[in-house]
Amino acid sequence: MDNDGKAIEISLSAISSKSLWQTTGRWNNSELFKLKDSKGKQYCLTATCEEDITDLMKNYITSYKDMPITVYQMTRKYRDEIRPRGGLLRGREFLMKDAYSFASNKEDAFATFQKLDDTYNKIFKDLKIPFVSAWADSGDIGGEFSKEFHLIHESGEDTLMSCKHCGDVSTLDMSQSYPEKDGRYMGDVSYKYALTKDHSTLICFYYPKDRQLNWNLALNVMEKDIDPTLRNKPNDHVLEVYQNDNEDIMFSKILRVMDCRLNSKSNFPDFPLKKYLKNNFGQIDDVSIVDAQENEICGKCEEGSLQSFKSIEVGHIFLLGNKYTRPLNVKFVDKENKNDSFVHMGCYGIGVSRLVGAVAELGRDAHGFRWPAIMAPYKVSICTGPNNEESLQRIKQIKSDLLENSTLHLQNDILNQFNEKLGIGAKIKLSHALGIPLCVIVGPKSWPNVEIEARGIRWGKKDQWKKELERRGQDLNWKCTTENEDGIEKHLVPVEHLTEVIDMLLKDM
Amino acid sequence: MDNDGKAIEISLSAISSKSLWQTTGRWNNSELFKLKDSKGKQYCLTATCEEDITDLMKNYITSYKDMPITVYQMTRKYRDEIRPRGGLLRGREFLMKDAYSFASNKEDAFATFQKLDDTYNKIFKDLKIPFVSAWADSGDIGGEFSKEFHLIHESGEDTLMSCKHCGDVSTLDMSQSYPEKDGRYMGDVSYKYALTKDHSTLICFYYPKDRQLNWNLALNVMEKDIDPTLRNKPNDHVLEVYQNDNEDIMFSKILRVMDCRLNSKSNFPDFPLKKYLKNNFGQIDDVSIVDAQENEICGKCEEGSLQSFKSIEVGHIFLLGNKYTRPLNVKFVDKENKNDSFVHMGCYGIGVSRLVGAVAELGRDAHGFRWPAIMAPYKVSICTGPNNEESLQRIKQIKSDLLENSTLHLQNDILNQFNEKLGIGAKIKLSHALGIPLCVIVGPKSWPNVEIEARGIRWGKKDQWKKELERRGQDLNWKCTTENEDGIEKHLVPVEHLTEVIDMLLKDM
Repeated sequence: MDNDGKAIEISLSAISSKSLWQTTGRWNNSELFKLKDSKGKQYCLTATCEEDITDLMKNYITSYKDMPITVYQMTRKYRDEIRPRGGLLRGREFLMKDAYSFASNKEDAFATFQKLDDTYNKIFKDLKIPFVSAWADSGDIGGEFSKEFHLIHESGEDTLMSCKHCGDVSTLDMSQSYPEKDGRYMGDVSYKYALTKDHSTLICFYYPKDRQLNWNLALNVMEKDIDPTLRNKPNDHVLEVYQNDNEDIMFSKILRVMDCRLNSKSNFPDFPLKKYLKNNFGQIDDVSIVDAQENEICGKCEEGSLQSFKSIEVGHIFLLGNKYTRPLNVKFVDKENKNDSFVHMGCYGIGVSRLVGAVAELGRDAHGFRWPAIMAPYKVSICTGPNNEESLQRIKQIKSDLLENSTLHLQNDILNQFNEKLGIGAKIKLSHALGIPLCVIVGPKSWPNVEIEARGIRWGKKDQWKKELERRGQDLNWKCTTENEDGIEKHLVPVEHLTEVIDMLLKDM
Repeated sequence: MDNDGKAIEISLSAISSKSLWQTTGRWNNSELFKLKDSKGKQYCLTATCEEDITDLMKNYITSYKDMPITVYQMTRKYRDEIRPRGGLLRGREFLMKDAYSFASNKEDAFATFQKLDDTYNKIFKDLKIPFVSAWADSGDIGGEFSKEFHLIHESGEDTLMSCKHCGDVSTLDMSQSYPEKDGRYMGDVSYKYALTKDHSTLICFYYPKDRQLNWNLALNVMEKDIDPTLRNKPNDHVLEVYQNDNEDIMFSKILRVMDCRLNSKSNFPDFPLKKYLKNNFGQIDDVSIVDAQENEICGKCEEGSLQSFKSIEVGHIFLLGNKYTRPLNVKFVDKENKNDSFVHMGCYGIGVSRLVGAVAELGRDAHGFRWPAIMAPYKVSICTGPNNEESLQRIKQIKSDLLENSTLHLQNDILNQFNEKLGIGAKIKLSHALGIPLCVIVGPKSWPNVEIEARGIRWGKKDQWKKELERRGQDLNWKCTTENEDGIEKHLVPVEHLTEVIDMLLKDM
C-alpha cells in the first residue's frame, strides 16, 4: 500500500456521528449498529468509512495541487448482519483494510483506480493464494463501477461466470449471456412490471419462465431509471400505481423489454392494458436480463461459452465519482482558479479477517489447516522427542542457523517450544494441524540427516522446488522420499544443507 | 510481553453481551457505551475485557496444570467519558494493551503479578521515557491491590506523593501521612459520618477543618466496611438513617476515627448523640484519613518527608483475586482432584494512545514535538536544498548506507522524501516539528562533512554520547558544535563516519 499504492496510513474512529450518515443518505441502512452517548447524541459503528474519510479530507484538500492522494487503514468494521456465518467468513465485527483515493479529475481518479487494482492484484499474488477478479455491481457503496476479488471455492456464497474465450470474469449480477445457438426459447414467458422514477412509463420485462430475472441487468438496461421502491411489489400493484399516477393514460408511455432468449414463438401472456397510443409504445429487444447459466454464450465477446464457479468475495474496489463528495460538499480550487467542481473518489477494501477464514476453508483437510507461508502462524516447526537432551541442543542450533542464514529472520517464524509432555508424533501432528508449512524432524536415528515434512500448499508457482531438486539435489544430498502422500510430502537432507533446502521449499508456499 | 511476560497474544471483540456484565455487576457502569442489534439483544462496547477474557478462558482452564497462563491484546476500548480532554489523553475511544493472568493459587498469581510488573517497567524503560510506579487504589476494576505507572508532568490530573527517605511512591488516594513534627493541629475540627454496611455502627471521622477527607484512606481504616450509598449524603441524613435502623439506640455502636493530626487541644464539635452506652463506644486514634500534603511525614517509613507531583497515569496493574472468576464460576481441578476453588486473576493495562498523548505533552516545545526514537515517526531525516541533483544523489547513498550499516533497518526509520517545493530550511523545520530525533543536513558547502541537528530528547541514560564523543571524537573527526541551543544540538562529522555517530547519538534517545 505504501510503495505500490503510494498511500498514507491513517486510523479512523470506529464511532461515527449520525449527521454525517444522514447527509449521504445512508443512516437508514439496517446493517448499521447504532448507539447513543450519555447526552443522547446518536452515533453508529462504522460499517465502512466513506463518510468519515471524506469529512476528514475536506480539511486537507483545498486545491487541485493537493491531489491525487490516497489513504488507507486496517481497522475493525461493524455490520449488524442478519445471518452471520462461518466464523470469520461473515462476522458482525471484522477487520478490513480500506483505502480511499481523491482526485481532481476523472482521468486521475481512473489512473488511481488502476494503480490500486494493480496493487491489490499484487497483494493477493504475494499471499500466493488462488484468486480471480471480476467486474461487479457497486451495491450500497455506489459509484460508477467496481471490481471484486474472489477466492474460488465450492462453499462460497457468490457465483462467478467466466468466459473460456475472452477470459472475462463477472459476478452473476453483471454477467450478460446469450442463448446457446440451438437454444431459442419456446415455452411460457414470465413478466415483471416496473415504473420509471417519474412514473411516466410502464416497463414490462419479459423473460423465460424457467429463468431468474436479474434485477441489476434489468436496471442497467434502463440506465438505472427505475423506481426502486416498487421492486418487490406484485405486478398488479405496479399497474395500479401507474394508472393512478397517469390519469390520461393515452399520453403515458409503455416500454417492453425482451430478454434475448425469447422469440416470436415464445408463449407471451396477455398485454396488461386494453387501450394505448401506438406512438407511446416502445420495445427493447435482444438484451440479457436473466441470471446467466453455464454453457450459454458470453455477453461480452459473443463467442465463448460461460462457466460458473462458486466463490468467496475477499476484496472490492470502486470508482465512486462524486457520490460522497457532492452531499458532503468537498470542492477544490482548480487550475483555472474556479472552486465549483467536486472531488472524484475511489474506495478499495480487502476483508482481512474474512480472507483468513476463506483461506482456512480452501486449504484445510483431515489433518487440519494448511496456510500459505506468509499467513501461517509459524513458517517452520522443529520437533524432537521429549527428554532428549542431545536433540534439544540440536534444535537450538538449527533454529539459530535458520535465523542467521535462511530467509527466516523473526523468532516467531519458527516454532520449537512445545508442551514438554508431547511425544514426537504428537508434535508433528500438532504442527500439521496448525498448518505450519514445514516441519523439521530431528531424530537420533537419522542424524546427521534430518527429515522435513512439507505440508505447505502450493497455490502459486508450483514447480520451483522440483527444478531446484533436479539441479542441486545431488550436491546437497537432498532426497524427496515420499511425494504428496495424504497431503504430506517427505524430504531427507543432511543438517548442513537444511537452511538452503528450507528456503527452496518455502519459495513455492 | 511474549518473551518477558510469557504471554500469548489474543484479540477479543469490542462488542460484549449484557448478560456477562450483569453477572459481574458492572452493567450499570455509566461509562459503558450500550447498543442493541436488530433483534433487540443488548450489548456494550468493551471498556475493559475482564468479563470477556474470563468467559473465554473458562473453556480452556479445567485443571491446575493449565495454569499459570497469561494472555494479552492491543485493541481499542470505549468509555463514554463525561469530559474527554487533551485529544489522546482522554478519549472516548482509545487503544489499550491489556493483559490478563490466571493462576491456581495466590502465590502463583502474585508471582505473575510481579513478573508483569517487571515487564511493564522494562517496557517503559525501553521507551526511554521518565516514569514512576505508584501503589494505587483499585477503583472500579477491583481486586486485592494495584499499582499505577505515571509520567510526571505539571499538566497531569493525578497527584503522586513520594517519600525522599524510603522512596515509596503512592497516588494521593493511597498516601498515608503524619504531621510535621511541630505541626500538631490546634484549630477547628471537621467531621463526616458514615455507617457500617449492616448499619449497626455509626462511624464519625474527625479531621482538621482545613484538610480534605480522603475517602479511600477512611475506607481502608474501616477495612472497607462502610455503606457506600451514604458517601455523599449530609451528616444529618446519615444520623437519621442510623437512628431509624437502630430502634434501641442503647445497643447500637459508635466508632470515632481520629486523624493523626488532631490532639486533645483541637477544637472538637459537639458529639452527635445525647445518650449512648459507654461499652458500645469505640475509638481509633492516630490514623491518616486526609489527603497528604507536601513536607508531611511519610506514613510508610515514618521518617522521610513527602513530595508531591502532578502526573499522567499511563498504566495500571491489578491483583484481582477471584473478583471475576467467582461470579463467572471459573473453577479448576486442583492437585487433590477437588474442583471447588476459583481461579486467581490479575490484569494489566497500558493506555497506548494516551501514552502517545502524554509523551507529546511532555516533550513538545515551541518548535513542535520531541519523541523518543522508539516512538518517533522516523528516527532520522536527511535534508538538502531542492533541485540540487548532486545532494539528492548523496542523500540516496547515505540512506542506503544507514540501512545497511547502522542500527536502522527499516525504510520507515528514515525520512528523505519531502515536498519538492520546500527549501532546506523548511525541511529542517518540518523535521524538528515532527519530533524526528536526528536531522542530517547535506549541504554542498560543508561536504564531505555533514551536519546533524539532534532534537531527540534524552530522558533515559543521558551521557553515553558524551563519553563516546570524548573517547572517539578525535578518531572520527566528530565535533559537537552547539550544545542544546534552544533544544537543538548541532554536530559536524565526515560522511564516512556518519552511521557510527548516528548510532551513538541514538543510544540515549
